[in-house]
Amino acid sequence: MLTDPSKKYIPFKPFTKDFSERTWPSKRITHPPVWMSTDLRDGNQSLIEPMSVERKLRFFEMLIKTGLKEIEVGFPSASQTDFDFVRKLVDENRIPEDVTIIALTQSRPELIERTVEAAAGAKKAMIHLYNACAPAFRKIVFNMSRDEVKQVAVDGTRWVMENMAKHPETDWYYEYSPEVFSTTEPEFALDVCNAVTEVWKPTPQKKIVFNLPATVEATTPNMYADQVEFMHTRLNKRDSIVISVHPHNDRGTAVAAAELAMMAGADRVEGCLFGNGERTGNVDLVTLALNLYTQGIHPGLDFSDIDEVRRCVEYCNQLPVHPRHPYVGDLVFTAFSGSHQDAIKKGLAQQKPDAVWEVPYLPIDPADLGRTYDAVIRVNSQSGKGGVSYLLEQEHGLVLPRRLQIEFSRAIQRVTDETGREVTSDDVYSLFFKEYLGKSSPWKLIKHRITGDPSAAQGQHFSIDAEFDVNGQRQSLSGQGDGAISAFVNSLSLPVRIVDYHEHAIGTGTETRAACYVEVKIGDSLPGFGVGVDVDIVTASFKAVLSAVNRYIQENGMEAVEASTTSTTA
Amino acid sequence: MLTDPSKKYIPFKPFTKDFSERTWPSKRITHPPVWMSTDLRDGNQSLIEPMSVERKLRFFEMLIKTGLKEIEVGFPSASQTDFDFVRKLVDENRIPEDVTIIALTQSRPELIERTVEAAAGAKKAMIHLYNACAPAFRKIVFNMSRDEVKQVAVDGTRWVMENMAKHPETDWYYEYSPEVFSTTEPEFALDVCNAVTEVWKPTPQKKIVFNLPATVEATTPNMYADQVEFMHTRLNKRDSIVISVHPHNDRGTAVAAAELAMMAGADRVEGCLFGNGERTGNVDLVTLALNLYTQGIHPGLDFSDIDEVRRCVEYCNQLPVHPRHPYVGDLVFTAFSGSHQDAIKKGLAQQKPDAVWEVPYLPIDPADLGRTYDAVIRVNSQSGKGGVSYLLEQEHGLVLPRRLQIEFSRAIQRVTDETGREVTSDDVYSLFFKEYLGKSSPWKLIKHRITGDPSAAQGQHFSIDAEFDVNGQRQSLSGQGDGAISAFVNSLSLPVRIVDYHEHAIGTGTETRAACYVEVKIGDSLPGFGVGVDVDIVTASFKAVLSAVNRYIQENGMEAVEASTTSTTA
Repeated sequence: MLTDPSKKYIPFKPFTKDFSERTWPSKRITHPPVWMSTDLRDGNQSLIEPMSVERKLRFFEMLIKTGLKEIEVGFPSASQTDFDFVRKLVDENRIPEDVTIIALTQSRPELIERTVEAAAGAKKAMIHLYNACAPAFRKIVFNMSRDEVKQVAVDGTRWVMENMAKHPETDWYYEYSPEVFSTTEPEFALDVCNAVTEVWKPTPQKKIVFNLPATVEATTPNMYADQVEFMHTRLNKRDSIVISVHPHNDRGTAVAAAELAMMAGADRVEGCLFGNGERTGNVDLVTLALNLYTQGIHPGLDFSDIDEVRRCVEYCNQLPVHPRHPYVGDLVFTAFSGSHQDAIKKGLAQQKPDAVWEVPYLPIDPADLGRTYDAVIRVNSQSGKGGVSYLLEQEHGLVLPRRLQIEFSRAIQRVTDETGREVTSDDVYSLFFKEYLGKSSPWKLIKHRITGDPSAAQGQHFSIDAEFDVNGQRQSLSGQGDGAISAFVNSLSLPVRIVDYHEHAIGTGTETRAACYVEVKIGDSLPGFGVGVDVDIVTASFKAVLSAVNRYIQENGMEAVEASTTSTTA
Repeated sequence: MLTDPSKKYIPFKPFTKDFSERTWPSKRITHPPVWMSTDLRDGNQSLIEPMSVERKLRFFEMLIKTGLKEIEVGFPSASQTDFDFVRKLVDENRIPEDVTIIALTQSRPELIERTVEAAAGAKKAMIHLYNACAPAFRKIVFNMSRDEVKQVAVDGTRWVMENMAKHPETDWYYEYSPEVFSTTEPEFALDVCNAVTEVWKPTPQKKIVFNLPATVEATTPNMYADQVEFMHTRLNKRDSIVISVHPHNDRGTAVAAAELAMMAGADRVEGCLFGNGERTGNVDLVTLALNLYTQGIHPGLDFSDIDEVRRCVEYCNQLPVHPRHPYVGDLVFTAFSGSHQDAIKKGLAQQKPDAVWEVPYLPIDPADLGRTYDAVIRVNSQSGKGGVSYLLEQEHGLVLPRRLQIEFSRAIQRVTDETGREVTSDDVYSLFFKEYLGKSSPWKLIKHRITGDPSAAQGQHFSIDAEFDVNGQRQSLSGQGDGAISAFVNSLSLPVRIVDYHEHAIGTGTETRAACYVEVKIGDSLPGFGVGVDVDIVTASFKAVLSAVNRYIQENGMEAVEASTTSTTA
């Protein structure tokens, strides 16, 4: 049994009496905050395996493509990798003119010097200094008085100024964080920030950033908003200050904390895509941005191909995004219950192209994110066992990836719509065959030969010669790539891109076959699946690619592929 | 690029002018709500494969063990499985006396009749009636006026009363939900609820439940709290009413919505464990409960072995819990950065047994949840590549499960603490060998023989005869089970329980070996890992079990195992 918490834990109270002067509960958010991604710093710092340089670069470039203008790129004084990465960005001119890179540092002269050196030469760079101000840290970790802690912030600010002065070619900015603001006495946090303002002397033209981290979420999000409004209404030279928040998700309310804080006066939000970061993660910038979007406010970030962003983040962090994650999870645009499906169908039918979005159960048009709505049909739902994927697995050994399960339910939906009757368990495999396995036109593979040569140049490890039947015509094609599949895809000279890949064995011993599932994008199309089964694992994957290509062509016509070829190569 | 949302989406406003009379922002939560689990209804309804009866029962029993007193068990009029499941609970006397089961129904006479029939005979049962009241539904789905919608609620309530009267042996309760309350005009929701009150005639002794669902999250959580306070202060016969909330997580703020709603007057919360449910899920009851716990309020639910609850939920829902999920995720009690680790170490050292919990970065004592804190050490962190699991994988082909990666870092931490120096990449494998692979005392497997007989009775599919060296003594033991591992574990006659299991091949061709990782509980101990490598896949798993047993005995002594054997068999 959980022990009695009444002596071990005490309710957190930032203010000795109620902060009844608050005005934020009557405010609305009317414009997006300044977004700051700390994926490459706070996010990266919390991974079991931190990102390699290749992964960091990939993430950085995706952030820029998404529209981020402030990107925290590392903690250069704490790690040689971080130092080298920041230098690489600067030296190789990888930072667009309108993007500010940010580097974190503790308040020690040698660390500050190294941090400034890491970013020197960038067009726009921000040094982000922090020191812990909360009572538990003053007492337990540093054994320092309030005045001593304030002096650390003031000294650090001076050292930052001195070091910046050595590198006048860079347009320098400054951010200060009274660490663990969430559990710091608000009066003390205010006192420290005002002391920093006196040293730094910000102006309305060149503001300072005061970042107020909920390093650990300590209480309900309304109280964090009270703390932010306290600062907002009392900071000296408010017109020269950007108030920033940095919520963590220990109590599962980081998104709410950021939203209420914006109502309370915050101008800027630091977080990570899909909420990576120490312990429970930083606030999820994607959810925040799309929450604004559904209220008619453009977030200034581009998530129109949200799955592409997700794949990049999952690759770099080596952590999954949960199937129920708002806006992006595999299951969030699916409806399972009949009454939900019915309401959505009626809503979609009545939705006019230029009208306000008003479809029950769908707070956002999935097409805006490059996604689709799916009604997941249960076969024989009465039994509670005997759903589509259960049947395919039990009777045919096919284990469908979750997104394919959802996509296949669209084919089932079509049949129930056309015939007006429920799909039976006997229908399932024949439908699956018709939709995926039996799609052999226009492209059909006749035979192929692969040569693997790991000593060949990059991009040429595998060579393939393949013979096809394309609409009744024999065609011989060849291609190269670093894997068998990429060589095969290249041989097709179609704008095909593999976005996901699953493979498993069916059966055991001499009877073993391989099932392969590929998720493919053709040109700018929405992703779609193809499936291949063969005794040979490699052939199964080629068949899967052709299954996806054929499904696309049968639905959209060859012209669509040619059009997207043009637009892709243009 | 995301399209301009300013015409497609409009900001949601529940009230025509600001609800400035609100008092909730100054309130504190001082006691837990009534908890209602809808895992077996709303949760189950949203699964690609709904739970089998076996899974539903397992979930139901875990909920009872956890302390839930109100459990929504199904939608009996919509599914024969649900009907049968509810009858099974009643007929087999599976419902404790202090537990109320709840059954959902739409407002149609034949459906209500069947719903009441499903629950009839239970000691305490609640019928939960809903109809959609929100404008989009009135217009798009039903084409009904406000008065017609209100009449549906009133008629349904009468039909519920008539049907309940036929089964006086049951102590009946009633719950009404104005569906999609979150987007319904508050005045209209109030009007409908008051009309239901007039028919039902609740009393302070026998209250009615008015559940106010955020079926789809429509706006920031403070506005939902406004909506709840509006109802709380205006409902007729408030002293005869339980106000319940049912938040979904479309905007990622369901936990906050529930918390602010409690401050605004809600008495009861409906949700699912770890936030399963339609689309983005229902509010997560575990996070809500533990958020209260950290503020000194006992939630009345028992999550003192949170991993056990998680395993049950993952098994039943066939969905994972995310590694960053508050309180339960694999990564939430780990610290990666040196400064975090340093602060936590100092905090733990200064923490007195009976004092208020005050450890930096740990909002809760992991031991309260049956978990441990881990400092994850990076080897050679300078390179950014070359962490512990990277090295083990690259150089030895070992792919450690995430929780084992975290656990192993404890062994590394010990070495860095003792030697005061960083662990080098050369140290990693020898440490791993010493900690896991080389643990061959007191228990060592000499040889074994397995017999498999699928036609044997349950629990006896596999028989094993094994010979061990135990502290230098030969011992021959035998056991039976439905799998080779369970037969092996049973042969040991130790209180060993496998809680997780991973296996993979190392290498290819004739060189192939198998690596097996088991997470094991011995008696009431915290779970720990064991690892085995062998050319034979089955032998590898036996070695892994013994590795876990030996680690436990070497650390705690044989007496600990004997003590827990006694307490387990007692």
